[in-house]
Amino acid sequence: MPHENHETMAALARQLRVDAVRAADAAGSGHPTSSMSAAELGAVLLARHLRYDFERPGHPGNDRLVLSKGHASPLLYAMYRAAGVIDDEQLLSFRSRGSVFEGHPTPRLPWVDVATGSLGQGLPVGVGMALAGKFLDRAPYRVWVLSGDGEMAEGSVWEAVEHAAYRGLDNLTLIVDVNRLGQRGPTRLEHDLGAYARRLKAFGWHTREIDGHDVAAVDEALTEARATTGAPTAILAATRKGRGVAEVEDRDGKHGKPLPDAAAAVAELGGRPDVTIPVAGPPATPAPSAAPARSAEPELPRYRTGDEVATRDAFGKALAALGAVREDVVALDGEVGDSTRADLFAKEHPERYFECWIAEQQLVAAAVGLAVRGYVPYAATFGAFLTRAYDFVRMAAVSRAGINLVGSHAGVAIGQDGPSQMGLEDLAMFRAVHGSTVLYPCDAHQTARLTAAMADLAGVRYLRTTRGKTPVLYGPDEDFPIGGSKVLRASADDRATVVAAGVTVPEALRAADELARGGVSVRVIDLYSVKPVDAETLAEAADRTGCLITVEDHRPEGGLGDAVAEALAAVDRPPPRLCRLAVYDMPGSASPEEQLHAAGIDAAGITAAVRTMLGRLVTA
Amino acid sequence: MPHENHETMAALARQLRVDAVRAADAAGSGHPTSSMSAAELGAVLLARHLRYDFERPGHPGNDRLVLSKGHASPLLYAMYRAAGVIDDEQLLSFRSRGSVFEGHPTPRLPWVDVATGSLGQGLPVGVGMALAGKFLDRAPYRVWVLSGDGEMAEGSVWEAVEHAAYRGLDNLTLIVDVNRLGQRGPTRLEHDLGAYARRLKAFGWHTREIDGHDVAAVDEALTEARATTGAPTAILAATRKGRGVAEVEDRDGKHGKPLPDAAAAVAELGGRPDVTIPVAGPPATPAPSAAPARSAEPELPRYRTGDEVATRDAFGKALAALGAVREDVVALDGEVGDSTRADLFAKEHPERYFECWIAEQQLVAAAVGLAVRGYVPYAATFGAFLTRAYDFVRMAAVSRAGINLVGSHAGVAIGQDGPSQMGLEDLAMFRAVHGSTVLYPCDAHQTARLTAAMADLAGVRYLRTTRGKTPVLYGPDEDFPIGGSKVLRASADDRATVVAAGVTVPEALRAADELARGGVSVRVIDLYSVKPVDAETLAEAADRTGCLITVEDHRPEGGLGDAVAEALAAVDRPPPRLCRLAVYDMPGSASPEEQLHAAGIDAAGITAAVRTMLGRLVTA
Repeated sequence: MPHENHETMAALARQLRVDAVRAADAAGSGHPTSSMSAAELGAVLLARHLRYDFERPGHPGNDRLVLSKGHASPLLYAMYRAAGVIDDEQLLSFRSRGSVFEGHPTPRLPWVDVATGSLGQGLPVGVGMALAGKFLDRAPYRVWVLSGDGEMAEGSVWEAVEHAAYRGLDNLTLIVDVNRLGQRGPTRLEHDLGAYARRLKAFGWHTREIDGHDVAAVDEALTEARATTGAPTAILAATRKGRGVAEVEDRDGKHGKPLPDAAAAVAELGGRPDVTIPVAGPPATPAPSAAPARSAEPELPRYRTGDEVATRDAFGKALAALGAVREDVVALDGEVGDSTRADLFAKEHPERYFECWIAEQQLVAAAVGLAVRGYVPYAATFGAFLTRAYDFVRMAAVSRAGINLVGSHAGVAIGQDGPSQMGLEDLAMFRAVHGSTVLYPCDAHQTARLTAAMADLAGVRYLRTTRGKTPVLYGPDEDFPIGGSKVLRASADDRATVVAAGVTVPEALRAADELARGGVSVRVIDLYSVKPVDAETLAEAADRTGCLITVEDHRPEGGLGDAVAEALAAVDRPPPRLCRLAVYDMPGSASPEEQLHAAGIDAAGITAAVRTMLGRLVTA
Repeated sequence: MPHENHETMAALARQLRVDAVRAADAAGSGHPTSSMSAAELGAVLLARHLRYDFERPGHPGNDRLVLSKGHASPLLYAMYRAAGVIDDEQLLSFRSRGSVFEGHPTPRLPWVDVATGSLGQGLPVGVGMALAGKFLDRAPYRVWVLSGDGEMAEGSVWEAVEHAAYRGLDNLTLIVDVNRLGQRGPTRLEHDLGAYARRLKAFGWHTREIDGHDVAAVDEALTEARATTGAPTAILAATRKGRGVAEVEDRDGKHGKPLPDAAAAVAELGGRPDVTIPVAGPPATPAPSAAPARSAEPELPRYRTGDEVATRDAFGKALAALGAVREDVVALDGEVGDSTRADLFAKEHPERYFECWIAEQQLVAAAVGLAVRGYVPYAATFGAFLTRAYDFVRMAAVSRAGINLVGSHAGVAIGQDGPSQMGLEDLAMFRAVHGSTVLYPCDAHQTARLTAAMADLAGVRYLRTTRGKTPVLYGPDEDFPIGGSKVLRASADDRATVVAAGVTVPEALRAADELARGGVSVRVIDLYSVKPVDAETLAEAADRTGCLITVEDHRPEGGLGDAVAEALAAVDRPPPRLCRLAVYDMPGSASPEEQLHAAGIDAAGITAAVRTMLGRLVTA
């Protein structure tokens, strides 16, 4: 790098520090010191290595920049100002109500692909983007992840480290701002760059250790990262938190708060330069579109009514069919593809299948990264094991990412394997996610239709599938709108309504038949769309039958029962009587039938509950 | 090891294989091949290294054995039979209804400390046990973790690897059964023991690579592990899945199913030896009690009514006070102790404080490990980041572990930091956990009392705290029973009930005052115990006032609103009209007051909702 560039870089770094200090000062909160340590890293990256057209953030050839240390948002926003795409007023709106310059970056800003702020997520999501670049887009863009040192303690980082090396993601660069200080004191490794390097190398990474305040060294390291092939590169940069202001530099207790005297700090930093940096755009050669054109409707498999088919099988087959007509559909699995049946997609479309091994955080993060690049990911594992990635699901919602998650082996119906393998909290977990869709089909045709329909929804979509076989109830051309339900039994004499979903639907039908033989007519609703929920049909059933019984292979909290209660809570008319059947006890091992019976959610349990309820109503 | 021992070990390994095959055959399901690969590892460990009194599983000097690869339960149960503590009939009850020999081990068996089956959890929990042994019990027992190779892909394993090395846990041994095959094919590293060793060494572990079917090599390695000081030891054992039966040995597609012909397999394995192994007990020198005696009631801090105190501060102070009278209370934090205020405990009781860095899975796992050893752990981080550990929380419930989890920075009330830092799904997540208790205090005295009370509950206990200050409402001697609530405003004229908790309680009181000025009397309930919930008080309020409004700083799903709806669902009388105020939109940055207002959960929002509800009731 020529000397004049060197000086420009240093001035730019100074400006980024000054702007970070000013933004936090204007907000009265924020993380200036964590921004200041990475100023040279940000400056050199922005000015000399990032290939990014700020006017066209969706350009498929753009590099991607992920600020994994999201609390250093003032640095990122200062970089935007240096790039000339925001003005000073915008910068100083930091953290104020309505401002898109939030405390931690979110995609409300066009240049932010994913929300960060929960540490250790930037690298796993970056892996997803780099997988897209290398194996799908086959485009030369690079993924840059700027991470803190404290977050290297997160296991998710090491899932990503292993994944990136294994797939040879040389289009991915991790820059670790090793500023030695965490929130409440020194990190475990402080400035021991060698320890970080040894670990990363052991996983197969190329590493480079530098002084993160030496712009020439930063420039050389980033150049080396771009030139390195066959392995991802990690740049371990020793820096000082709060660099440039003596009162806070490298000092404990200065985390996450504005500087005591911002004006003095700006003066100490050398005042306010006003550098604007022309950022190089992506190469002129057009990269392939990241969102390939869609094609015809999928030819979904057809089944015979009454046949017994596991919904997980129906999901796998439908996904493979969907993939045949949509090039943007990709699948991922956590090394259980033969259980979730994602492997049926893998067999048909191996080039769009991503094995994520037993690393569920990386599984969901890769889905988010692929979604950001325009793909429609379906990530599958056992419903129980998606709990491992709940923080990633929550953050996917903050990222406004459109991802499909598929949890197999729902509920006690799996049988002998026992509670560790049973998804029993998944409906609660996914219902509480902002903007989510939660689907729980009961038969093969319904599963196929919902698998295809979820592709085009916004936000986090969850499909819950069943291990064992269930009878095919619906015809192949039946429509299953999101937010709808199916009334499977109804008559003018209905005295109660049973609301079921998934594996309890055939049980509810059997119970209705048994009750009918005893002269008691009950309505049966298949509530396959748990969120959004069909409040209208439920309300009508409530009006007509007066009482409802929900029955679900899930904990009593947060699932079907709560969804129905929420739908029926209304201020302008009295809600119906409600009773919920669910898995109240801790299961052990038993056959699927024994499990459903023990939980009281099989036909016998439902029949008994209806009789009890009606008996109480008579005596009440 | 003398030659005769060598032969006994080999015979024992053969027996373990045979019994694993027989158990899975009897069950018609299970994982014999994953058990067979580890037979020599189990045999040599049991016969020559484990120090365990099977008659007294609670003996504080006992070694601990964690089968992280929980699907290899047939191996574990076969080891119990070899130790002479279960008989053949018990072994063959494997996976049948009611049997304590579940598909994956749980503490329904007296010799199982923690449930396994969700992979990658054994080592982090083992770290918790080893921390107890080395730093609290100061006892010579060892912790042995037998893990699979596939689960080494879980990030939680690397959180534990770093933690164990950093704390020098030389009382911890990880034995990795590197059998090369995962569920659906080869693992990433197959038999590359060196790759595992390089990674572990880079984190500071002592490692040993062996042929896992060579009993002498296994014996030497375990001996070496016991003799190694200053660092934990990992034994990387190359093995063959399904070892000993040609039809399945080292073959793809043989995961998780009984052998095709069990009788032939038993014959091929050399028939059924009937070895019983005397297992050495712990050293005669009595180890210190793992559950130190309890002392007097804690002297909880006292506040002045009307003072403004953050409940997170009140938690920290109460925990420090509790620690002063109870030696069994320990605290852990995810490197945010100055935010959660767990650091107030750390200052008073540094020897019982465990910094877990930014690694929330290890944080919760360590709490489980400490609970298993008789301690009463309080593990704290932001409520948002406990989502990172949901799988560990779920498994803690399967383990019947008694742990206290404390989530600070609940809800939009944190203000400027934005959604990534806001606990908004935590109530839903914890409510759905089997046997959990969910507490959400609104003032300092309530927080202090609940902090102390939760120590003695069973199962997973969750305390939700608030970042900002709230007024002290209650006196220092007020009692707050678990499952109770407080009626803060009530009169014969109440026309509606507002149910609040935590930060919305003072808002509800302000709303009640404002409404009273307009001549509308409303009841206000502080529902600090979200689970179990005070159904009786809610029902009475419903009867008296006809309608309820829940108001919570949480998503509308799974939290306070659902808890109240569940409590009021009854078959024998019509439920009341219900309306729920909650955080329906995705927040950005803003001041705490602006956030509460934007979500409609401040006094103004509550006032408006009550007026709307009453208006609709009049016109309905």
